[in-house]
Amino acid sequence: MTHEFELIGKLRQQLSEFLSLRVGPGDDAAVIDRDDGSAWLFATDMLLDGVHFDLQQTTPQLVGRKALAVNLSDIAAMGGTPGAVVVSVAIPRGSGIGEPLHEGLFQLAEEFDVPVAGGDTNSWDGPLVINVAVTGELGGDPPLLRSGARVGDWILSTGPFGGSLDGHHLRFTPRIAEARQLRQTADVHAMIDVSDGLAADLHQILRESGVGAVLREAQIPVRDAIRHEPDCLDRALSDGEDFELLFTVSPDDGRKLLASSATGVPVFHLGEITSEKAELERADGTRIALPPRGWEHTL
Amino acid sequence: MTHEFELIGKLRQQLSEFLSLRVGPGDDAAVIDRDDGSAWLFATDMLLDGVHFDLQQTTPQLVGRKALAVNLSDIAAMGGTPGAVVVSVAIPRGSGIGEPLHEGLFQLAEEFDVPVAGGDTNSWDGPLVINVAVTGELGGDPPLLRSGARVGDWILSTGPFGGSLDGHHLRFTPRIAEARQLRQTADVHAMIDVSDGLAADLHQILRESGVGAVLREAQIPVRDAIRHEPDCLDRALSDGEDFELLFTVSPDDGRKLLASSATGVPVFHLGEITSEKAELERADGTRIALPPRGWEHTL
Repeated sequence: MTHEFELIGKLRQQLSEFLSLRVGPGDDAAVIDRDDGSAWLFATDMLLDGVHFDLQQTTPQLVGRKALAVNLSDIAAMGGTPGAVVVSVAIPRGSGIGEPLHEGLFQLAEEFDVPVAGGDTNSWDGPLVINVAVTGELGGDPPLLRSGARVGDWILSTGPFGGSLDGHHLRFTPRIAEARQLRQTADVHAMIDVSDGLAADLHQILRESGVGAVLREAQIPVRDAIRHEPDCLDRALSDGEDFELLFTVSPDDGRKLLASSATGVPVFHLGEITSEKAELERADGTRIALPPRGWEHTL
Repeated sequence: MTHEFELIGKLRQQLSEFLSLRVGPGDDAAVIDRDDGSAWLFATDMLLDGVHFDLQQTTPQLVGRKALAVNLSDIAAMGGTPGAVVVSVAIPRGSGIGEPLHEGLFQLAEEFDVPVAGGDTNSWDGPLVINVAVTGELGGDPPLLRSGARVGDWILSTGPFGGSLDGHHLRFTPRIAEARQLRQTADVHAMIDVSDGLAADLHQILRESGVGAVLREAQIPVRDAIRHEPDCLDRALSDGEDFELLFTVSPDDGRKLLASSATGVPVFHLGEITSEKAELERADGTRIALPPRGWEHTL
């Protein structure tokens, strides 16, 4: 996968330069300029049975829900609101899962008031595949990129991490409203949604911003379900598929966000942006390297 | 497939009504209104190994090319110009086809000046899957729908039909420029790109427009490669994947288009829109029913 990621990154960068797109190779959605000076967002995600979900352990409804939710999460991470989506599916022949799959997706679409504009429905002898593409609007605001973190920024998140594969990855709430509320309360410098894992996605911000970070072990929020497991910290750093927003703001804005209930969900303060190196500060004050481990994209 | 098509059609119609989308259940792309009164297009197509192409008989470059081309054809059929695309792929692990696949796609993207804004690249143990989603612009013009055909209209096409699976379905030129040129020369009443087959896609126009049609056997353009085969007429009517534009205009506009070279490609006059029934007029003047057979979406 890494090779192919690098490849599409390389090709996309060439083409992006050619076409003057503003998208960075790693942002959650592409930013496309309109002639009138405004910009819109465009993202896509493909979910595969056995890779992003396991139909033997979940329902088609939840798969359809997740396929839309991960795309909405991409738009949230850019600070946008979703415009419309198109949905493509390849359904195992004779499985009868087309209906519940679409039900799950349409239910979330209605919840988030997102029009499902069209689709392409196929049946085949392969495993279930579902792809969603989504547009997003910025309402005149600039997009929130991974590249905006500044030394001294606080690192915050909209929720805890780890243990998502127990069910959270199928049922999470895309942080659309929370991202908009964050923007209204604070000047968000950089943002990402945590899909590959807290450490891996923090590293994306660090690489794109050219900075370092320190996370404080005692401050890393761990999901309740795994809190009593001995490896819960590792899992919070590495499990992935949390789909919480990870973002950086000035210390003043950080204090404001911690003191307010503006986002409607708890906001956690995990550490700070530094000038170089990614580190984890243990409870005793010692610091160790924080490698960018992350989710392997295989169940 | 039919069941699932009906299903997504039904669900989409419900939601479209809810959300006041202008898209008909059968149009090639969704039409989405902007707040400023203009509209944009949104379409998606998923191609599956063994269904829409056969990797044992073609190259990954041509698969990548086709994945983009079918989406551009959808935008052409609505009379629009492509905005941007996002690409998702599931690549068989270790196959090494990611690079040539993207090369083929990017080459066509450059030819048509379409930005590839982003993507989602996965590897897995299943067959190759590639999905493209595309936006389109209408430049202030109304979208060309399947529902606009009027009794007395001429039925025209931008090219011949049949035998596409010999290679044309991988190498065809999306009729973007031709559609725009048609609009500049004539008032196009209804349009579709022929993917399921001439007869099947004509039936889509008839159903959406509430009209009938007569095609004249002697006037149906047959692709050179199959012209000498005994079943060439059947194949022209049924093979599918031609990706030529099938459209209707007034007789005056039809004469104008046949006399001019405005579209840059030959335009064929296949028959007329009637008030009811779909018929085929044989060489001897007798008429028989023209059923909506079409491509089975399986190689």
